[in-house]
Amino acid sequence: MPEPLATDPYKGVRDFYPSEWARLQSVFGIIRTTLELYGYEEYNASPLERAELYEAKTSEEIVNEQTYTFEDRGGRRVTLRPEMTPTFARMVAGKRRELPFPLRWYSLPNLFRYERPQRGRLREHYQLNVDLAGLSSLHADAEIVRMAHAVLSAFGAKNQDFIIRINSRTLLTKLTEEAGLSSEGARAYIRLLDKKSKLPPEEFRASVSGLTKTDPLSFLEGGSPSVQEAKASIDQFLLLLQEAGITNAVFDPTLTRGFDYYTGMVFEVFDTNPENPRSLFGGGRYDGLVGMFGAESVPCVGFGMGDVTLLDFLETHGLLPEAHTAPELYLGTPDEGALAHALAYADTLRAQGLRVIVNLTSKPLGEQIKDAVRRGIPYFIAYGGSEESGSTVRVKTLAKSSEEEVPKDSVVEHIRR
Amino acid sequence: MPEPLATDPYKGVRDFYPSEWARLQSVFGIIRTTLELYGYEEYNASPLERAELYEAKTSEEIVNEQTYTFEDRGGRRVTLRPEMTPTFARMVAGKRRELPFPLRWYSLPNLFRYERPQRGRLREHYQLNVDLAGLSSLHADAEIVRMAHAVLSAFGAKNQDFIIRINSRTLLTKLTEEAGLSSEGARAYIRLLDKKSKLPPEEFRASVSGLTKTDPLSFLEGGSPSVQEAKASIDQFLLLLQEAGITNAVFDPTLTRGFDYYTGMVFEVFDTNPENPRSLFGGGRYDGLVGMFGAESVPCVGFGMGDVTLLDFLETHGLLPEAHTAPELYLGTPDEGALAHALAYADTLRAQGLRVIVNLTSKPLGEQIKDAVRRGIPYFIAYGGSEESGSTVRVKTLAKSSEEEVPKDSVVEHIRR
Repeated sequence: MPEPLATDPYKGVRDFYPSEWARLQSVFGIIRTTLELYGYEEYNASPLERAELYEAKTSEEIVNEQTYTFEDRGGRRVTLRPEMTPTFARMVAGKRRELPFPLRWYSLPNLFRYERPQRGRLREHYQLNVDLAGLSSLHADAEIVRMAHAVLSAFGAKNQDFIIRINSRTLLTKLTEEAGLSSEGARAYIRLLDKKSKLPPEEFRASVSGLTKTDPLSFLEGGSPSVQEAKASIDQFLLLLQEAGITNAVFDPTLTRGFDYYTGMVFEVFDTNPENPRSLFGGGRYDGLVGMFGAESVPCVGFGMGDVTLLDFLETHGLLPEAHTAPELYLGTPDEGALAHALAYADTLRAQGLRVIVNLTSKPLGEQIKDAVRRGIPYFIAYGGSEESGSTVRVKTLAKSSEEEVPKDSVVEHIRR
Repeated sequence: MPEPLATDPYKGVRDFYPSEWARLQSVFGIIRTTLELYGYEEYNASPLERAELYEAKTSEEIVNEQTYTFEDRGGRRVTLRPEMTPTFARMVAGKRRELPFPLRWYSLPNLFRYERPQRGRLREHYQLNVDLAGLSSLHADAEIVRMAHAVLSAFGAKNQDFIIRINSRTLLTKLTEEAGLSSEGARAYIRLLDKKSKLPPEEFRASVSGLTKTDPLSFLEGGSPSVQEAKASIDQFLLLLQEAGITNAVFDPTLTRGFDYYTGMVFEVFDTNPENPRSLFGGGRYDGLVGMFGAESVPCVGFGMGDVTLLDFLETHGLLPEAHTAPELYLGTPDEGALAHALAYADTLRAQGLRVIVNLTSKPLGEQIKDAVRRGIPYFIAYGGSEESGSTVRVKTLAKSSEEEVPKDSVVEHIRR
């Protein structure tokens, strides 16, 4: 006898049994419907990408330590995509002459990160990606924030359930210029700002002092005209959001978002639950990425929303949608001789859209009813020889333990009522 | 300037631009609806699996030469799943005490094979997997063949468009016993039979002679009682299928299906198109797989259907469904001052389920109409200050170049009519 195989999945990834998958798909269904109402179209790609795609732009830590990268037998270095934005930019660049700009695209890819086991984080998750390519106006930035707001609202979240923090990389750049920082110093400062909430205040101040005499943020009030212009643009942006009913957006000059590729507006959505006021997701404008493929640059703005955080937010706020894919009717079979008739009758019900399973086991009828209850199937009909020759069946509503005699051709109507 | 990045995907995988993804999703939608009518529930898992899962059961060629297998930083050997059945068996074994048998499950995973580039085959494809676990009767085998038949029929395929070839590993085993082959010899013979159609007849005959004096297939007529019993069981099975309207199933004693794990009924569906009479997909019974996880064994039967072959079959027979995810209405904006009103009006239409995009560019109205036509959006409304203050809008039907004045609150009704 060989050693038995283990039944657990590979470390850090999830198995989706039907009820879990149905839950995720019902969430994805609401997301898809919402985005398609706004004219966004779904795209996808393989999780396998050439490793160069990430080496060019993401931070070195990600490529070297946090991706699954390996060499194929042809000597090509392959990476399991850790994020979707580079793939989006690659696809846009690849067909930029044929595609009708502006593009409104979304995707629901699975992404892979090589997390060190002790962190207890997942190595694979799903992430909604929503992007608008080909427009550089504030209206485009506003539409992307509206999409983030629309998705949460579609689940029933109210403005008081979350807050949208807004900032601008343009403003941050101008502030660092004002403070006399080089572009390299500015990048270091922005990385520091990104970690600000995790650092003790003295340590943050000391690190800033190492870069510049004056904290760039101190130029926010009374800075140069170019700082004031960038600031005014944020005010105008917040007004656009207000007009669209997004009254839960605020300016946060310390918000940076990690990625180096952001070039303009950045935003991050936070749960307002006082017990767990954490970051949910975010995004921003990245106008330089498509140009890295040798094409003219295409202004882009978008966001990414992970499934684990979203499901957790929905669960905490009591907003998880119900999933409906289980069968609606269990057709019991009291005698095997009539099975062919039961199968044929089931098909007439399915033709009317009812989800039906037919018992194929030799269990007695009482056990079949128990089986239906255990599976959470709401209705049960025993279908044998007398049902085949008669014109009615007895429909059991299992939750109520009630039974009603119904004409065979009215069963779907009866159940749907 | 760094070297520009390439825009093509990794070798052998596909990018799915929105129209291609919508086409695939509309096909998957029909598959999902059909299977759920029969009570099948969707599951999924990560494409990352421990390599041991495949080393235990699939043929050596697959593990050593045709999978993506690499070592992670913790020294674990990881494989990108080349097929879904081992994952299915693993998940069933993992929760066999909690799950309500029989299970009716399906999945639409992407699968990976390391194909040598010169073969021109894909390295990633999608494959519908349908499985019924916990029943060993002919009725269960018949249900699985019905599912294969139901999926093709749901697209409008007729019985004359495809043929289902049926065989039984039980019968093949008994025939090889009759011919005096050891179980090792039987495996070699079955592998040979699997390649029969690709070999010159003399070569096949010569190879068989190397294994046994008499070709096991010659015992089909007038064999021992146990051969006759296995043969009678196939006849009974074909009758069950006939009762269910499956008149295009035939017995084919040379059918084997490649995998070693099949233990009973096997089937394969072929296109009957005389210009391209190729194999489409297949499946069979595999009762030993769940037991490899140290659990009591669970009888299973199922099939896998690849997306590339299916799409090709549907296209050849004119059965590809239409995909509908593009926006239905383009809301043109003649003046930027009224944009906020246009955005608000678009939201009232979306609340009624209409897919709407609002122009955010500064293009003149004529260009916006051309843009709508290029995108294949059927309706166009220009919404400016006068539309905001009035009670009607002019709805253009772009395909007919016609225009009609419609009350603002009847636009969705007008378009849906």
